[in-house]
Parts: sequence; structure tokens; C-alpha cells
Amino acid sequence: MMTVHDLETPSVLIDLDRMERNIARMQDYCNAHGLAFRAHIKTHKIPDIARAQLDAGAVGIACQKVSEAEVFARAGFNNIQIPYNIVGPKKTARLADLALYNKVTVSADHPITVRGLAEAARANDINISVLVELMTEIERTGAPVEEIVNLAQQIDRDEYLHFAGLLVYPTNPSIRPVLQEALAQLNAAGIGVDVVSGGGTGAAFHAHEVPEVTEIRVGTYVFNDWRTARRGWAAYEDCAMTIAATVVSRPTPDRAILDSGSKTLSNDHENGLHGYIVEYPEARIYQLSEEHGHVDMSACENRPTVGERVHVIPVHTCVVTNLHNEIYGVRGEEVEVVWPVAARGLVW
Amino acid sequence: MMTVHDLETPSVLIDLDRMERNIARMQDYCNAHGLAFRAHIKTHKIPDIARAQLDAGAVGIACQKVSEAEVFARAGFNNIQIPYNIVGPKKTARLADLALYNKVTVSADHPITVRGLAEAARANDINISVLVELMTEIERTGAPVEEIVNLAQQIDRDEYLHFAGLLVYPTNPSIRPVLQEALAQLNAAGIGVDVVSGGGTGAAFHAHEVPEVTEIRVGTYVFNDWRTARRGWAAYEDCAMTIAATVVSRPTPDRAILDSGSKTLSNDHENGLHGYIVEYPEARIYQLSEEHGHVDMSACENRPTVGERVHVIPVHTCVVTNLHNEIYGVRGEEVEVVWPVAARGLVW
Repeated sequence: MMTVHDLETPSVLIDLDRMERNIARMQDYCNAHGLAFRAHIKTHKIPDIARAQLDAGAVGIACQKVSEAEVFARAGFNNIQIPYNIVGPKKTARLADLALYNKVTVSADHPITVRGLAEAARANDINISVLVELMTEIERTGAPVEEIVNLAQQIDRDEYLHFAGLLVYPTNPSIRPVLQEALAQLNAAGIGVDVVSGGGTGAAFHAHEVPEVTEIRVGTYVFNDWRTARRGWAAYEDCAMTIAATVVSRPTPDRAILDSGSKTLSNDHENGLHGYIVEYPEARIYQLSEEHGHVDMSACENRPTVGERVHVIPVHTCVVTNLHNEIYGVRGEEVEVVWPVAARGLVW
Repeated sequence: MMTVHDLETPSVLIDLDRMERNIARMQDYCNAHGLAFRAHIKTHKIPDIARAQLDAGAVGIACQKVSEAEVFARAGFNNIQIPYNIVGPKKTARLADLALYNKVTVSADHPITVRGLAEAARANDINISVLVELMTEIERTGAPVEEIVNLAQQIDRDEYLHFAGLLVYPTNPSIRPVLQEALAQLNAAGIGVDVVSGGGTGAAFHAHEVPEVTEIRVGTYVFNDWRTARRGWAAYEDCAMTIAATVVSRPTPDRAILDSGSKTLSNDHENGLHGYIVEYPEARIYQLSEEHGHVDMSACENRPTVGERVHVIPVHTCVVTNLHNEIYGVRGEEVEVVWPVAARGLVW
């Protein structure tokens, strides 16, 4: 039996009990409210975990890139949504190829993007389902509400494309007025809507307050992290991911240095801090070098010595997985499973 | 012939002419000042590039982890410095194993760390060379000057360890007084010093102002990045790394979204910005999602359309390489070489 003591540091540990509880809780919520649940694999990039999410009741997966979708299609996942503008002839050709054997839905927010999808679908003589993305408060991608009908009509007119509905992120209750307006305009134009796909871990448990949403795609909830805990989206006891780290230097009484820097934890921060040390809750990871975590221990009564192992709840779990070749599923002291991060580093 | 147009985005491109110029310039500087140059592989993690650095005259390499050193030792590099506290019996055992067949030097800043190295050396019946790290203005690792002699004596007393000298980072001229003090104390204690190993891309071309330094280990200079250019450590024309990215959304006249987010560029920032777009110098990459770069185009006269390809000089090149499975060596339009990032993701 391999135990956590056999692992060197830094290692990414997944508490399997917590992960399974997170999966069950989200699915229960969706079941209770008649919502379809779609697992966003960006957080783990591991087919085994997506399989557990499907086994619990998820209708399918979401992947952020064609390359990720290809990995998961090869692993047997057939209902794949890519909530992303796939732009450029090579990528749309690969998307069309993927759609030959799988139920693939993609999003778009611009006529040029829709045209690219249409050309790839026609060239491959297949039909591609397209969601139109509606701009939300986060002001990232997404078309403004006054362009939604035009985009839906452009899609619907094309014999190789199917207008599948709307994509929104995140689906906080504040989105509801603009979402209702978009749906009313589509209705007035006589355009049917199959799906309103929402998402975001922070918004997930509020999805029932936006009854127009028919499915949510969520990633982070499966592990949670310091950000979701600090923002009240999850409890600290729901944080399934920790990084086992070693104190490698104690240059001053107040300063400890961990063997986990930005190449291990990422440089994401929450209020300028880079994680939460389970054993030293008052410690502050105030800076990261590439391979060093700089910790201020001044508020801690007890302090570690060189060689001590600690566990860090990272700020943002999705970017941590992406930095590691494998992560470890742990139950108690036992390392139950070693997971290669299958779709990691697939930037295309 | 493969050209840059055959690559999808995001792709990490290395301008080989610029890289070769960077390598030559640094080596010329070191040669002119009688300094040994040691190539820190953390920036590229690619044996071929380290080979080019050695061919130019580098005396050896520096690796930040035992796992990285193992990859490079297998690739034929035998003079390896690990400027890091290697802590824990498994890692020190691997270090000792590595030292059997290679000239390995490691650093330490604490008696516990020295003891661990001694035990591993004894168990493997080999000798390990140890540099003592002196604390500098960046206040990361490193022992205070008053502990240097004690650590050097602890090392020297051990029949399996050899005190090799001092490690300092970075070697800005401001370090000189404390470095001189440490050397004077060692001299007074009758302890010989083989090497004073300095480093840091920002400090590199000032190393001759600290004549106590005998070698410098530098990584970033090989590619450079927006940070080194902004801080005046290199010219924009010395930036060998760009990320080819595609504009995937133009939701408003002022906003463009790139297909390169924190999983491509890392979340490192310089003054809150996440990179420099070569084609649009006035553009501001003001935020990154995992797979989206959020760009403010308001200061730009010309603005891109959906599908346009641009090139981003990243903020911090070392953490970008670490996110990618392979990077592309380019001369003009030609992709001359595809390099797997061999030592990437080796967190141990």
C-alpha cells in the first residue's frame, strides 16, 4: 500500500471523500431543481474524475479547447460542450471531425466565428450545434443582447449549423433581466431555444433563482479551493485539494520558505496571498518565487522547523492541476490512485 | 518546411537569432570579465538549449530541483549546480546518487539541511560539495552573515562534505558589503572558498562591479521577457519568446479577447498587465482568465478583427515554458525546431 508518506513534496493530494461529497452535493442540488448538470473538466483534466461525475448523473462534459475534447472523446466521453469561440480553419476542421462521432456543442459570439463553423461543417458534411454566448457582467466574451437574434438567425439559416440556445457565464441572479430579454427577442423572432447553459462555481447553487437556465456547467466545485472557501461558496471542509509541501528554509524567526512556488501553486492570489496552510492557519503566504513559497509566520504561536511537511489549500485549483504531471487521490493516509493529468498542457 | 503559419495558437515561438545573440552577449561579457558563466535551465528546461549555452562557453548548468538535474544528467550534462536547499531523505539520496557520476554542487542555509546532506553522502559513500547561501536583500532563503562561518565549519568537519564557497542571489552591487564581510569571516576562520556563485538576469551585467563573484548563474537572459525589457535589463529586440495568439472575440470596440489566458501566459504580471502585444504596442492585457486574455484596445488607432493572429511578449518567460508541452524554434517564417520541454512538470 502506498501512503502519503511515500510521496515527496510538492505533491498535489486529492481527498477522495471530500471530492465524492462535492460531486454528490452538486448533483443532488441539480436533481432537486430539475437542472441538467455538465461537468467542466478544466479543473481536473482527468477522465476518471469526469467518469465519476457522469456516474453521479452529469449529462456530459464541457472542455475549453478542442484538444481537451479530443482527449476526452478518445476516453469514451461523447456528449461534449466547448463553451468557447473556436476560430481558425484547422481548429474548426478538428471540431467538425470530433462532431462526426460525438454530440458536440460549441459556442460563438460573432458572425465571423459562426461563418468559420459553417465552413468546417459544410466541408465535413456534418451538422454542428451552436450556442450563442450572451455577454454578462464579467465583460469577457459574449455578444450584447441586441445582436443575439441576428447571430441565431445566421446560425439557423445555415443548413449545416443548428442553433442550440444560449450560453451565459456566470449565471448569477443579476443576469436574469438581460437573459429574459434575449429569450423574449428570440421568441418574437420565432427561434426555438433548446438549452440555456449557465455556469460558474460561485453561481451554481443559485441557478434555481434563474429558472430560464436549463443546465449548468461547473468545474471548480469538484475540488474547491481557498478562493471558493473565502468567498463563501464552499466550506474549508469541502476543499479536496491540498499541496503537500516541505519547509526548506527558516532564515528568520518570522519567515519560513516552502518548496512550493509559482510553478507549483500558480501565481493566482486572493487578496495578495497565495494559499492557506492547514497546519498554520495564521500563516501568510505573501509571495511566490518560481520554486519558493515565502511565508510570514509572525502571527503563529507554533512555528515549523526545516524539514516539516505542511499542506496548502491553493488559491485556484484549476491552474494548479494544469502545472502537474500527476496528482494523487488519497483516502486517509492511503494513496488510492495516481492520476496522470491527461489533458494538461494541451494549449491548442 | 514547416512555417509559423502551420502552427495553431497559442504557440510559444522562440526567435533563434535573438536567442543566439542573447547567449553570445552574456558569454562575451563573462569572458571579458573573467567570470565563469553557468546556465540556469529553469527558463527553458530543454537540453538542446543548454547545449548551445555550453557550446558558447558556459562551465555547467544550474537546476532548481533534483528531478530536473536527473533529466539533464541523462542528457549528458555533468557539471550541475542545484542552488536550492534539498531537504528530506529521499531527495538527498537521489542527490547523492546523482553525485556518483556527475560533478554536483548543492546549496544549504541551515544546520538541519547540512546534516541531511551529510547523512545521504555517508550512506552512499560519496562526497558532496556544498555552497552556503548568504541572505540578500530579496529576503528569501539564505543564512544571515553571522551564521556563515558556523555552517561552513559544520560542512568542513564532515568527511563526506566539501565546503565549496558561497551562493548569493541576486548579486546586485548592493550585496558587496555583506559579501565582503562573510568572506572576511571565513578567511579569519581559515576556511578556503572555491567559488562565489552569483546570479540574476537583472544583476548579470553588473557582476564585474562585485569582483568577489567568481561565477554567475542566469536563466531568463536566454529568452528575456517584458519584465526584463521594462526594467531596462534587455531591449525589446532581445525578447526571443513570443506567444502566437488569436483574437477570438471582439465584444465591444474597445475590448479584444485572445485565446491565451493564465494557462498559457501564467498569471505573473508587471504593473498589473500580463504581456505586450507586438502588433499593438498601445494595447493593455489587463486581465487573464484561464483561457482568455482580456485586452483593452482603447488606446490603439488600428484594432484587430476576430481571427487575427498577434504575438505577445510574456511578462515572465520561465513560468511560460513550464506551462507548455513543446515550444518552437523559429528563424524568419521557418519553424526550424520543435522542442519538447523535457524537464517540465517535474515538481520533485
